[in-house]
Amino acid sequence: MKLKVIAYARNGHTDKFGIPRQSREESPIETRIVFEPDYAVPETLRGIEGYSHLWLIWGFSEVDSWSPTVRPPRLGGNKRVGVFATRSPFRPNPIGLTSVRLLRIEQGELIVSGADLMDGTPIYDIKPYLSFSDSHEDAQNGFAEETKEYRLKVSWDLKPSSPSTFLALTQHLPSTLPANWKEDVEYILSQDPRPGYQDDPDREYKLDYAGWNVTFTVQNGAVIVKNVQKK
Amino acid sequence: MKLKVIAYARNGHTDKFGIPRQSREESPIETRIVFEPDYAVPETLRGIEGYSHLWLIWGFSEVDSWSPTVRPPRLGGNKRVGVFATRSPFRPNPIGLTSVRLLRIEQGELIVSGADLMDGTPIYDIKPYLSFSDSHEDAQNGFAEETKEYRLKVSWDLKPSSPSTFLALTQHLPSTLPANWKEDVEYILSQDPRPGYQDDPDREYKLDYAGWNVTFTVQNGAVIVKNVQKK
Repeated sequence: MKLKVIAYARNGHTDKFGIPRQSREESPIETRIVFEPDYAVPETLRGIEGYSHLWLIWGFSEVDSWSPTVRPPRLGGNKRVGVFATRSPFRPNPIGLTSVRLLRIEQGELIVSGADLMDGTPIYDIKPYLSFSDSHEDAQNGFAEETKEYRLKVSWDLKPSSPSTFLALTQHLPSTLPANWKEDVEYILSQDPRPGYQDDPDREYKLDYAGWNVTFTVQNGAVIVKNVQKK
Repeated sequence: MKLKVIAYARNGHTDKFGIPRQSREESPIETRIVFEPDYAVPETLRGIEGYSHLWLIWGFSEVDSWSPTVRPPRLGGNKRVGVFATRSPFRPNPIGLTSVRLLRIEQGELIVSGADLMDGTPIYDIKPYLSFSDSHEDAQNGFAEETKEYRLKVSWDLKPSSPSTFLALTQHLPSTLPANWKEDVEYILSQDPRPGYQDDPDREYKLDYAGWNVTFTVQNGAVIVKNVQKK
């Protein structure tokens, strides 16, 4: 089967690093679903406002190989499990599946939260979430059960010498800093974007989110933000 | 994106008529997932037994057109809603999405229940169900909310003159009749397989399931099975 791109995801995740590894109800990150011209037909969305949640079926771009087993980062990156027992991108057909909350419809675009998609991700289908078919509250989560509550604390320790840094954390936010930027970044960092269980307290990581670069370290299970700078 | 078939679904639904319109936890119908040679690698399933539910991403075969709005059969077939507000097959990319219960693994095949798939349906991906990402118990179901509890009662009123009929409903079931056949058929009929809300009490419908033909009518909201015959 050949899939046609019906829409693209647009959000602050212009870089792969930091994209949440799973969608989560509590994620504050907003994503716009922008339809391609052939599918930007308002009638296709008639009645969709009655649903609180939607499914997105999308493509892992830049992935074109697979392997029978993969090493999930949440298991420390050294335990192998079968590809069909994971949500890894390195699968025979690199299709992603994400449930999102429908926040609103704006000029024919869907605004959703909770997506684990990169900016520019191609979307192939949108379906309503049906609780009586799709919700299994007590499902057994296999190896993912152990790590589902895993979170890091996030604190800010910025050098006041950097003017853009200072501005970003006062009431006088520059108009170019998106709304909810700080909340989004705190959420992303709490999900531990490091590859595998890297654990070097001196290592500085860089997150690129919504036009701003964030420098942070991870020490004793807590994220410390060191710097914020406009790209 | 071009999708490769990784497996095919095998079950008693050799005919379109009667396939449940949504997957349901309570469905007794078993489906075997039979992998294609390139993907019949036991390692791909390592760890999958730890999950109670799986996602199947599959193709609506024989569908190659779409329309911005569709008329869901459950709304009587005369109300139009947007295609992205339904799970209709007539969508830009005819991809289906179904959560199923994983019953067991047999010789490298997955045996699942609750699928709304026809025999021979191509499967493109299998993913573990993650309750912390995928379960939204209180999701609002839009127009589907009204009809989610809709069921028909099923009763059997067979003519004892037909020998195969008689056999099928005694303890001396022929060995060719699959296990759970009666339970499966009662479930299928309770879901009202009629197109739209057709309501002609004299009309006889035929269900073809697992090698047997079932003739039934629907009168006053109840299914009456009239005949059961081997194909």
